[in-house]
Amino acid sequence: MNDANPTRRNVPWLDDIASPLLTDLYQLTMAQAYLAGDMHGEAVFEFFVRRLPGARNFLLSAGLEQLLDFLETMQFAERELEWLESHGYANKELIAYLRQFRFSGDVYAVPEGTVVFANEPLVRVVAPLPEAQLVESRLLNLIHFQTMIASKAVRCVLAAPGRLLVDFGMRRAHGAEAALLAARAAYIAGFQGSATVLAGREFDIPVYGTMAHSFVEAHDTEAAAFESFARSQCDNVVLVIDTYDTVQGARTVVELIPRLREAGIEVRAVRIDSGNLAELSRGVRAVFDACGEPDVRIFASGGLNEHALEQLLAAGAPIDGFGIGTDLDVSGDAPYLDCAYKLQEYAGRARRKRSAGKTTWPGRKQVLRRCGADGTMRGDVVALDSEMFPGQPLLVPVMRGGQRLQDPESLAKIRARVGQSMAALPDELRSLTRSEAYPVEISESVRALAGELDRLQGDIAT
Amino acid sequence: MNDANPTRRNVPWLDDIASPLLTDLYQLTMAQAYLAGDMHGEAVFEFFVRRLPGARNFLLSAGLEQLLDFLETMQFAERELEWLESHGYANKELIAYLRQFRFSGDVYAVPEGTVVFANEPLVRVVAPLPEAQLVESRLLNLIHFQTMIASKAVRCVLAAPGRLLVDFGMRRAHGAEAALLAARAAYIAGFQGSATVLAGREFDIPVYGTMAHSFVEAHDTEAAAFESFARSQCDNVVLVIDTYDTVQGARTVVELIPRLREAGIEVRAVRIDSGNLAELSRGVRAVFDACGEPDVRIFASGGLNEHALEQLLAAGAPIDGFGIGTDLDVSGDAPYLDCAYKLQEYAGRARRKRSAGKTTWPGRKQVLRRCGADGTMRGDVVALDSEMFPGQPLLVPVMRGGQRLQDPESLAKIRARVGQSMAALPDELRSLTRSEAYPVEISESVRALAGELDRLQGDIAT
Repeated sequence: MNDANPTRRNVPWLDDIASPLLTDLYQLTMAQAYLAGDMHGEAVFEFFVRRLPGARNFLLSAGLEQLLDFLETMQFAERELEWLESHGYANKELIAYLRQFRFSGDVYAVPEGTVVFANEPLVRVVAPLPEAQLVESRLLNLIHFQTMIASKAVRCVLAAPGRLLVDFGMRRAHGAEAALLAARAAYIAGFQGSATVLAGREFDIPVYGTMAHSFVEAHDTEAAAFESFARSQCDNVVLVIDTYDTVQGARTVVELIPRLREAGIEVRAVRIDSGNLAELSRGVRAVFDACGEPDVRIFASGGLNEHALEQLLAAGAPIDGFGIGTDLDVSGDAPYLDCAYKLQEYAGRARRKRSAGKTTWPGRKQVLRRCGADGTMRGDVVALDSEMFPGQPLLVPVMRGGQRLQDPESLAKIRARVGQSMAALPDELRSLTRSEAYPVEISESVRALAGELDRLQGDIAT
Repeated sequence: MNDANPTRRNVPWLDDIASPLLTDLYQLTMAQAYLAGDMHGEAVFEFFVRRLPGARNFLLSAGLEQLLDFLETMQFAERELEWLESHGYANKELIAYLRQFRFSGDVYAVPEGTVVFANEPLVRVVAPLPEAQLVESRLLNLIHFQTMIASKAVRCVLAAPGRLLVDFGMRRAHGAEAALLAARAAYIAGFQGSATVLAGREFDIPVYGTMAHSFVEAHDTEAAAFESFARSQCDNVVLVIDTYDTVQGARTVVELIPRLREAGIEVRAVRIDSGNLAELSRGVRAVFDACGEPDVRIFASGGLNEHALEQLLAAGAPIDGFGIGTDLDVSGDAPYLDCAYKLQEYAGRARRKRSAGKTTWPGRKQVLRRCGADGTMRGDVVALDSEMFPGQPLLVPVMRGGQRLQDPESLAKIRARVGQSMAALPDELRSLTRSEAYPVEISESVRALAGELDRLQGDIAT
């Protein structure tokens, strides 16, 4: 940031936020042990979600481009190495290793915007063991968040087809990166944009803005606030009308419209942020329609989520667009996914953790998806990568030798993929409540391998 | 970052994460309107939480130093201004204003680590209206997150007094900043440290690490993994024993201990990450005690939260320390606070939003806390700042004219304040379930002002 903006003062903890030290200490202690044991063999790790949370019937994969950004640029600075060494967190061998560290592995992944289910690998990392281990914490941190948010956002899209949906959640997102990447994940899932300006600048996401209650309160009257606001904007005038009395607010707008129109200013929409939105939106719609202003749109916000959208539309609320804030950006009903990044193979041999309640399917795996003649998804098989199964393989190579195999995908392309994914989604999975599970079969070979490893490990542990 | 580390390649969206464009678009549209209307009068905004979420009986304030970092350094870069202008998000007047923008206001705040309740202002910003407005989104984003996490973490501390508590949540925290600041907030609240290395580097928080199951799986036998790991570490050997069979894992450790001891290596602890922790910890403790190794500590992790801690300790589980991960870093039972930053006064006149279900108490306010002779908190009054009330005022000046009034507080000092706060906490508030509400009184003058404004606004709106 310093180069590009020499006057902005530094905030060290923020400037270092992309540091490779953003990891769990045990990644370093394990790397040290791997080096000591000369364990540089090829490791295969896979990221997957153990079970679908809340009422989710499926997930939407997201966050891959940010992961690839991380893997391509991960590098330790001298001052970071000095700090590690002086604090006893790394011996000389590890420091020397980290000094030359670049991620040199291969990555296979499910493209962003693909529908995925529990137990299906979303990302497969193939790299020398210390490398594959060192990237774990941030890989989880990046893929987990956007997959969670995209999976939440697409539920809003399913609940309000054809309506304008805008991410309003920056203020209560968990920090800066969450705010920025939630805007991206929601846009991928089918939102039309975000209120977060930085999302526009960094990802070219359309930015939407209205006005806040404080603006109205700072003026002596609501009418003065509306007029002052409208006259200061070039276009895109959206007035918040629920500061005092919502339907009265709509009448105040109606009275202003002729005067503004003389000045060439159109009120595009009003926003209602509180109260009974179904009832108020009908009252407001009636005011505008009765006064010959059917083109003024109604935008609603305030504690909304997919269930509120479904109820409002079922009640026939004449609302044209919605700002979805907190519950989207924190995935309120399911603020985390039970996900893992597990060693599945090392030095040519499959591996399996057997911890109670946390078993994983071993081996280097692929997901094959079968679709019907009409394109509808019929069922997936999680198979060994070496097996031959009918269906479309979901994991594709995205990085080789630490380098992206293609330029970052555009968000337009990812959004188009989500459109296709949604068209192929079986009807029962569109429900906001839990439906019968989509069939995800674990192949016989994977099951056989798991059994074999369990027997072997029984021998090892005793 | 570039200066200090010329070799690390840039990731633009990460390098820009601290940009002042991390805001809601309406802050810019409102600023444009304020400028057009020459509304530079003094505004008073207050941050407060509307209600306590989940089973919280109190909150712990946190995040102030990061807010002050933001306010002291907030500045727009030329390339950001060009982008805003070229995309039509700001007119020439606003661009000129943003070009010279520095926050010049005063800030009053409740010191970090203070016990606070619903409706009590935690931060008061006094600044020219456009400035106070422009800082809103990030102010909320910063104070909301750490206050939420500290309030969650202190519940774990109350549930497991005297035990080692370590933040393990980085991987499922919502992005990089959440991971880093969750470590800080948990440490403030009384955790002993974090697994997140960057938290050590940026905030001098003690860093804890163990080993992962993948390390065990990568070796041919558990015993070989343990020995290899122990020999590679200088000290601080903690072995994860639940990859295959937990009690058997403990026996494997016992067999190794003499050989390691010959090499001058002590096994400090074992970690159990799955299964019935109460039962397994007893089994593991019995193994070590029977073999004359009472000093090997037992550390537990895996899906823990304050309720699990309470249950484990009530069941007499011989566990010495806990890693608390996901549920801490996402505040799983309450992943957001219903908080707001509201205009309370403009140009010398109190203001009040009256939106249904979202009323706020108007005016420039203070919180006065009364304590008993033994130091125990007895009750708070939210009063006008101009009123005289007995009790300790919680809001203190922390910034004047955009400059901090003192150096950042050390975490040691904030932790000491939390210690005092906890000592002064009424017993019933220590419960993990909802107790009777702590008395927070709204002063007569505040109520009278609210009534007065409602009557006035009734006149305005009609």
